[in-house]
Amino acid sequence: MPLPVPVLPDGVDPAWLPEEAFRPVGGRRVLIRGSGPLVETVHGEVAEACARFGGALAEDDPELVLEATGDDGSEAFTLGRRDGRTTVTASGGRGLLYGFFHVVRLGEAAFQGERRAEEHRPASALRMLDHWDNVAVHPVMGQVERGYAGGSLFWADGRARGELERVRAYGRLLAACGINAVAVNNVNVHETEARLLTDRIGEVADIAAALRPYGIRTQLSVTFAAPIVLGGLETADPLDDSVRRWWAGATARVYEAIPDFGGYVVKADSEGQPGPFAYGRTHADGANMLAGALAPHGGTVHWRAFVYDHRQDWRDRTTDRARAAYDHFVPLDGRFAPNAVLQVKHGPMDFQVREPVSPLIGAMPHTALAVELQATQEYTGQQRHVCWLGPMWSEVLRFGPAAGRGFEELVAVSNVGDDPFWTGHPLAQANLYTFGRLAWRPDADPGAILDEWIGLTFGADGPAKELHAVLDGSWRTYEKYTAPLGVGFMVQPGHHYGPSVDGYEYSPWGTYHFADRDGVGVDRSSATGTGYAGQYATPWAETYESPGTCPDELLLFFHHVPYGHVLKSGRTVIQHIYDTHFEGVAEVEAAMAVWASLKGRVEPARHARVAERYEEQLRCAREWRDQVNSYFFRKSGVPDERGRTVY
Amino acid sequence: MPLPVPVLPDGVDPAWLPEEAFRPVGGRRVLIRGSGPLVETVHGEVAEACARFGGALAEDDPELVLEATGDDGSEAFTLGRRDGRTTVTASGGRGLLYGFFHVVRLGEAAFQGERRAEEHRPASALRMLDHWDNVAVHPVMGQVERGYAGGSLFWADGRARGELERVRAYGRLLAACGINAVAVNNVNVHETEARLLTDRIGEVADIAAALRPYGIRTQLSVTFAAPIVLGGLETADPLDDSVRRWWAGATARVYEAIPDFGGYVVKADSEGQPGPFAYGRTHADGANMLAGALAPHGGTVHWRAFVYDHRQDWRDRTTDRARAAYDHFVPLDGRFAPNAVLQVKHGPMDFQVREPVSPLIGAMPHTALAVELQATQEYTGQQRHVCWLGPMWSEVLRFGPAAGRGFEELVAVSNVGDDPFWTGHPLAQANLYTFGRLAWRPDADPGAILDEWIGLTFGADGPAKELHAVLDGSWRTYEKYTAPLGVGFMVQPGHHYGPSVDGYEYSPWGTYHFADRDGVGVDRSSATGTGYAGQYATPWAETYESPGTCPDELLLFFHHVPYGHVLKSGRTVIQHIYDTHFEGVAEVEAAMAVWASLKGRVEPARHARVAERYEEQLRCAREWRDQVNSYFFRKSGVPDERGRTVY
Repeated sequence: MPLPVPVLPDGVDPAWLPEEAFRPVGGRRVLIRGSGPLVETVHGEVAEACARFGGALAEDDPELVLEATGDDGSEAFTLGRRDGRTTVTASGGRGLLYGFFHVVRLGEAAFQGERRAEEHRPASALRMLDHWDNVAVHPVMGQVERGYAGGSLFWADGRARGELERVRAYGRLLAACGINAVAVNNVNVHETEARLLTDRIGEVADIAAALRPYGIRTQLSVTFAAPIVLGGLETADPLDDSVRRWWAGATARVYEAIPDFGGYVVKADSEGQPGPFAYGRTHADGANMLAGALAPHGGTVHWRAFVYDHRQDWRDRTTDRARAAYDHFVPLDGRFAPNAVLQVKHGPMDFQVREPVSPLIGAMPHTALAVELQATQEYTGQQRHVCWLGPMWSEVLRFGPAAGRGFEELVAVSNVGDDPFWTGHPLAQANLYTFGRLAWRPDADPGAILDEWIGLTFGADGPAKELHAVLDGSWRTYEKYTAPLGVGFMVQPGHHYGPSVDGYEYSPWGTYHFADRDGVGVDRSSATGTGYAGQYATPWAETYESPGTCPDELLLFFHHVPYGHVLKSGRTVIQHIYDTHFEGVAEVEAAMAVWASLKGRVEPARHARVAERYEEQLRCAREWRDQVNSYFFRKSGVPDERGRTVY
Repeated sequence: MPLPVPVLPDGVDPAWLPEEAFRPVGGRRVLIRGSGPLVETVHGEVAEACARFGGALAEDDPELVLEATGDDGSEAFTLGRRDGRTTVTASGGRGLLYGFFHVVRLGEAAFQGERRAEEHRPASALRMLDHWDNVAVHPVMGQVERGYAGGSLFWADGRARGELERVRAYGRLLAACGINAVAVNNVNVHETEARLLTDRIGEVADIAAALRPYGIRTQLSVTFAAPIVLGGLETADPLDDSVRRWWAGATARVYEAIPDFGGYVVKADSEGQPGPFAYGRTHADGANMLAGALAPHGGTVHWRAFVYDHRQDWRDRTTDRARAAYDHFVPLDGRFAPNAVLQVKHGPMDFQVREPVSPLIGAMPHTALAVELQATQEYTGQQRHVCWLGPMWSEVLRFGPAAGRGFEELVAVSNVGDDPFWTGHPLAQANLYTFGRLAWRPDADPGAILDEWIGLTFGADGPAKELHAVLDGSWRTYEKYTAPLGVGFMVQPGHHYGPSVDGYEYSPWGTYHFADRDGVGVDRSSATGTGYAGQYATPWAETYESPGTCPDELLLFFHHVPYGHVLKSGRTVIQHIYDTHFEGVAEVEAAMAVWASLKGRVEPARHARVAERYEEQLRCAREWRDQVNSYFFRKSGVPDERGRTVY
C-alpha cells in the first residue's frame, strides 16, 4: 500500500520539496521492487509524482527502477544508468528512500546519458536534529529556547500540538536532505517536559509514528534527576541499584510505546542542570548507567560535553571556560559504554560566529563522539540576518584531527518552528539543508550543496547566480560586522541579539575579552596564558601558541595583543576592526540590493519576507558597526586611517 | 460608634505602630469630643489603647482631651498641655486623627510638663503614594512594576485581592506618618488595568472604603486612550466633543461609586503610553480635558511631566534627555487648569542616586506642581540594600528655587507590597515614614524624623544610636559604591539592579556617560554642551555652567572632564572613583557589623531578614566596586595611588 505524501497546510512553504522538483521523476515510467514500510513511502512518493506529471508505475520498460533487495536498516544505495534506464538499488527501504530523493535532487540529469553504478553511503550513521522545544512555555525562554521560527512544531502551551500531518511533512523534508533522527524536546528539561519520559510518552509516540515513514528515529531529552522527580526516589546516584532499576523500567516502558526509539539526550551538570557530580560520580558513570538501560533495546545515550563553571568570578583569570570540556572529559576516554556517545559542541565556547575547533575532537580516540553544530542562529543573527553557515561547518568538519580520524555522528540544534517558512528567514532553510547533506558527507563542497538547495528550492530556472552570491559569503559578512578576530560574546546578555561589547565582560559566564586602553584579547597560550592552546595536538598547539603563527581570524581568541599589532593581512588590529565593520555593513547593503533586484523572480511571499528581514539586518549591522567601532575608538584613541565616521 | 482598629494578619510586622507605642495614651483617662466618621476612627483607636493599657474614656478629669470642634476637611490641629491636661483640638475629624497620631509619636513626652499651644498644619495639601501595581501580572514587569516587597496589597493575578483588613491596616500606617492619598494602580496602564475606570470601578471602591477611615483618598491611574480602549470611540483627541463627553460620563460614574474620589494620575506620551501628541494637541490640552471632567466633583488630575524621547539614537549628541521635561512643559506655564497638577520627578532623569533638582521646579510659577520622589528603591538597591533616602529628599525639598516658592504637593512611588515587613527590607520602612513626614513638613530635619521612626518602631529603649548610625549615612554609602559624581545609569539594563557601566551607554534611552580613555561625563553646559545648565535660574545656571564651580557630586552630570581633573576635595576624578568605591564597601561592612551586634536587641525575624539582606548588599557592593574600578582603570590606565586591588 503506498503511503500518501503528507499534505502541507495552506501557505506553508514547500522549501526544497516543491512540486516541480518531482517533475523529472513524475513524468516517467517507474518500477518499484521490494517491500517494507519505507518502500511504501517511496511508493506513495512515486505515485503522487506520476499522478501529477503524467508518468506511471509500470512493470514494462521502466525508465526508473527503484529496488529494495531486502529489508535491512542500511541507508546505502547504488545509483546507475544504462541503456536508458536509471536504477536505484538498496538492501532495504531506508536506502531506497534516500536513493529516491537523490534522483529527485539530480532532476533531469538522472535521466540523461550513462551513469556508472555509484554507491552512496552516509559517513555518519546518526544525523540528528536536537529541538530545543519546550512543552510548556518557559517564563524566560518561551516555547522554543533559542527559537527564531515561531512556536514548536510539536508542542504548544503545555501540550502536544497534535498537528501530525505537518510533523510528517517535516519528516519528509528532513529525509530529503539526509537527517535521520530528531530529539523532540529541549536539553534543558523543565518540570512539564520531564514527564514525557513516563506518563506522557504517548505524546512522543505519536510524533515518532509521524516521523517513522521517513526513516527518522525519535529521541528524548531527559533529566538526570528523573528518578527523584518522576520516580520518587531519594537519589539519582548512577551507581545506586534502585536508580538503575528505575531507569531500566522506565526505558523498557518507553520501548513498549516506541519500539524503534532512538535514545536519550542528556545535559548534565551544565548550566544548573542536575548530574552525577552531586553524587561524587563521573560523567562516564552517569552516561553508562543510562547506556545500560538503553542497551537491551538498541538505544543510545547522547551525553553532552557542554560542562563548565557558569558561576565563574570574572576577577578569576585562572579559570578558562574554553578549557572545560577537554579538562572534564579527556581523562574519561575509554570509560564510556559503546552506546554512550559524547556530544561535543564544535567549538570550546558556545556557537560563536568564530571559534577554533574543540580540541576534544580528536583527543578521545576510545570514545564515540558526536559533533554538535547549531543550525538555529542564536549568535549568528537569529534568522533575522542572512548567515549561511555551510562554510563554517565545513571548516570544522575538515579541521585537522577531525578530518583525520573522524567522529561518529553529527548533530545540529534545530532552526525550525511552526513558521510558514519553517525557519523564520526563508534563506535559513539553506542551513538546515546544508546540515543534512554535510552530515551525510562531511567532505562535500558546501558551495555545491548550496547550489543544490537553490536549484531545488527556487527551481531549475531560478536566479541561481544571484542567490549564490547573496548566501555564499554571508557568514563572513556577519563575522565582519560583529565580534572581531575570534573574540566572541560581544552580544546583549540573555537574548544574545545585537551588540553589547561589554555585555558579558563582567559576568559569571566565563566570556571575556579583557579590552583595555592598550589592547584586547585572551591569552590562552601555554607559555603565559591559560594553557588552552596546549590542549591541541601538534601542529595546532604550536600554531595557536604564538601570535606570529596564529591565524588572524582567531588571534584574539588565543592572544591579548596591542591595538597596533600587525596582522598577517598587514593591517593593525584596530584598523582591521574599523575596516571589517565598514566592509560588513557595505556587504549587507550590496546583498540587500541583489535581493531587491530579484523581485518578480522569486515567489512573492518569500521575497517580501526576506526583504523585510534585510531591513532589520541592515539596521542591526549598522548598530554593530557603530557600537564596536566607537567602543574601540574610545578605548584605543586611534582614529580610523580613512577618516570614516566613528561616533 | 468607635471603629475597631484593624487587625494585622499573623506574622505581619506592625512597623511604626507596635502596640507598645500606644501605652502612653492607653494608660490614661481620655475625653473625646466631636462627631463624624474620622472622630469614630480616633474613638476606636483610643478605646483599643485603653483596653490594652488600663486607661479609660472618661468625662471627668481627663489627662488627654481630643476635640473636633466641627466636621470640616481641615488637616490642621492644635496641641497643648496645661495643668496636667494634654489637649488636641481640630476643626474636623481629619485634623483630630493627625493630632492623635502626633500624641502617639510624642509618647510619654506628650504628658509631661507644660506645652504651649502649637498649631500643626501640613505644608502640602496632598501627600500621595503612587502604587505601580498591576492588576494582572505583566509578562516583564510582574505584579508590581519596580516592586521589591512581594506582590501587591490590592491586586493579585488579575483580580482585587479583597484582603481589605490588611488594606485598612495599611491606611492606618499611612495616616500615622501623614500620607493622605493613594493611587492604586500603575501609571503604565495595561489592558486589564484600564477597566478599573469603568466596569471594574467597584473593586477600587472597596479599596477606597477601606482607606477612607484613615483620611486617605483614592486615586486612579488612567490611560489617555480610554475613550478608544473602553469607550469604543475612534479618537482620544482632547478637543473632540465626544471624547470630552465620554470622560465626563465616565468620571461621573466613578464619583457615584466613590464620592470622595481623589482624581486621575496620567502618564501620557511617555515611554510608549498614548497621549495628546497623537492629535497634535499639547499636554495642557490633555490635562485640562481631564481636569474639566473632574472639576464638578472636586477631583484633580495629576499629569506626569516625565516626557522624553525614549527612542533616541545614542549617536545623536544634540538631544539631551535631561532637558526634555523643561523643554516640553515650561512653554505651557499658565495654561493648565487649577485642578491640573503637573507631577514632576525630582530630578531631570529618573530617580538616580544623585541628580540635580529638576529645573522645572521653580520655572512654572503659574502651574500647580507636585514633586515626585521614589520610595521604591528602583535605582537605589531595590530594598535589598539599606539606603535611607531622607537626606536626598531633604536636599531636593530645600533646594533654592523649590525652597523659595515651593510646590503644591508631594508624591512618592510606593515601596510597599504584601511582604510581612511591608517593604521587603525592614529598614526600608524608614523611607516610607520619612516621605510622609517630609510631605507634611518639607523643612523638617530628616535626622529627627529618622529618630522618630526608630523610636516608634524599635521602642523607647531600642538601640537607637546604632540604628541611627546604620541608616543615617546609608544613602551616601550607596552613592559611593555605585555610579560616581552624578553620572548615573551604570546599571544592568531592564531590571536596574547591579552594575553594568556600559549597560545604558549605547542604548536608545538617552542615558550616557561618554567615558573614553581620556575622561568621562556629559557636557551639559550652555557654552559647549547641551545647554541644560541654562535651564536653571540664577545662581544655579552659573554654578553648574563651569567645572570650577559645579559641586563635586554633580560634576559628571554637567561636565566631561579628564580623569586627572582635580575635584574640590583635592582628589583627581579617577582617584575619587577608586577611593569612594573602596570606602563604600568598607562602610557596608561596618554597618553590617553594627547590625550583627544588635542580635537579641531587635525582634528576631526582623533581625534575621535584615542580616540576610546585608549579605546580598555586601556581595553586590563589592561587585559594584570591582566592576566600576576595573572599568575605569582599563580605560584610564591610571593605577590606584594606594595600590589596592583593581582587577
